Amino acid sequence: MRKLSRSWLIKKTQINPMQNFKLVIEYDGTRFFGWQRQADKPTIQAALESVLSIILNQEIRIHGSGRTDAGVHARGQVAHFHADTRLTPEAIKKGVNSMMRHPVVVMACDTVPQDFHAQYWVKSKEYRYYILNRREPSAIGSDYVWHVNRPLDMDAMNKCAEHLVGAHDFKAFENTGSPRSSTVRQVFEATWQKDGENILVFRISASGFLKNMVRNIVGTLKDAGAGKLSEQQFCQVLSSCDRTLAGATAPARGLFLHQVIY
Amino acid sequence: MRKLSRSWLIKKTQINPMQNFKLVIEYDGTRFFGWQRQADKPTIQAALESVLSIILNQEIRIHGSGRTDAGVHARGQVAHFHADTRLTPEAIKKGVNSMMRHPVVVMACDTVPQDFHAQYWVKSKEYRYYILNRREPSAIGSDYVWHVNRPLDMDAMNKCAEHLVGAHDFKAFENTGSPRSSTVRQVFEATWQKDGENILVFRISASGFLKNMVRNIVGTLKDAGAGKLSEQQFCQVLSSCDRTLAGATAPARGLFLHQVIY
Repeated sequence: MRKLSRSWLIKKTQINPMQNFKLVIEYDGTRFFGWQRQADKPTIQAALESVLSIILNQEIRIHGSGRTDAGVHARGQVAHFHADTRLTPEAIKKGVNSMMRHPVVVMACDTVPQDFHAQYWVKSKEYRYYILNRREPSAIGSDYVWHVNRPLDMDAMNKCAEHLVGAHDFKAFENTGSPRSSTVRQVFEATWQKDGENILVFRISASGFLKNMVRNIVGTLKDAGAGKLSEQQFCQVLSSCDRTLAGATAPARGLFLHQVIY
Repeated sequence: MRKLSRSWLIKKTQINPMQNFKLVIEYDGTRFFGWQRQADKPTIQAALESVLSIILNQEIRIHGSGRTDAGVHARGQVAHFHADTRLTPEAIKKGVNSMMRHPVVVMACDTVPQDFHAQYWVKSKEYRYYILNRREPSAIGSDYVWHVNRPLDMDAMNKCAEHLVGAHDFKAFENTGSPRSSTVRQVFEATWQKDGENILVFRISASGFLKNMVRNIVGTLKDAGAGKLSEQQFCQVLSSCDRTLAGATAPARGLFLHQVIY
């Protein structure tokens, strides 16, 4: 009994190493004011930090792969945080998922090298955008689609989308308010596919994205699908680097951060 | 001018025939107290009747193919109503969809024979039930699935489900509170399929359904999938006609009235 007590004491008093944890997170962004912490407003970052701080009994600050706007969802957002703990990643994941009172779920938790950074180490990100294309509005899942009642020509949208692939200056699709040193990004994939009878899904993966880039691209491609913009005109918009020539910003609700690759 | 005015007058004063209209309706049942009108509670029937009564300028009473419980959704609920109107079915559909402030959408509106009855003319109904089968809870679309964290054996569930097909007394799967003259129903199809990585979809079509029949069947098949009930035991439950032997009632949120056939 003595021996047991003593070894327990030693374990308790030894200094635990600071560990780096990587989270993969799913969330429904509908009722949040976006990813990033803000004073007095519910955000995904704040929801996670407050639960993690309780579980780990220390103040936790998490760093996401990037922000998502109010109403935008994620199936595979990634964040990292440092903590001094003996809890296993699995215990942290279970703890968050059982304590969380918001639609935020930890899909995976792993220890990663000390210098892993969820934002700076990103190799590529994939977003998906969902359009419900039918005359009747949406009753089911309306928080997750953009309803477009005018019939869209998916082939025309795909022909335009092909021109996005490669390294381009995407300034025409960047909203103001987030100045970057460079507006050149490398797009690896940009395709529309049908899902069922009347859902159109846009998949776009790139080295990185500018502010509102996916939603501005989708708003412009929708104009192409509706016959308001030719393929040639779409190329002109892209090469103009002029935001005023591109289409309107598509609503947040149809957008999902699908995965982040490191 | 005179002639025109007169013909207009005649049209106005002539008695419009009472017409019978059939609606196909999609709704998100989450925030409703079910289909059927109740005093002071939001129901789908009440939402539709109030909008239709305004559009058609007369008190409209609709008759559904059957009730759905609180939280149950529909992609293809059917209802009929009689109205004295010169509005076209298309105008009624558009009117409802533009005035409706609830997640209820008219997918189709048609005139039907005077004696068409949405409940009595039913040949078969198809329900679908969605289970999210993964360890992590649901963040996205949690109003539309039942989250089951224990791994389910879909083959075992399908083997049991096969025994439902045909004419059987389904008393073991009927909740009390809605006594029927007969508890025998004819099931035409009952199968589980995968949708994506971790969604299990149950499709069941039958001549008719008893109160909570689908949810009680799903609750029992889930026990079979979790290894708590053998195929033989499932058959014993079915033939026992004893509700106490069947599994728990699955939650409403995973259930969709998919279509009604006439």
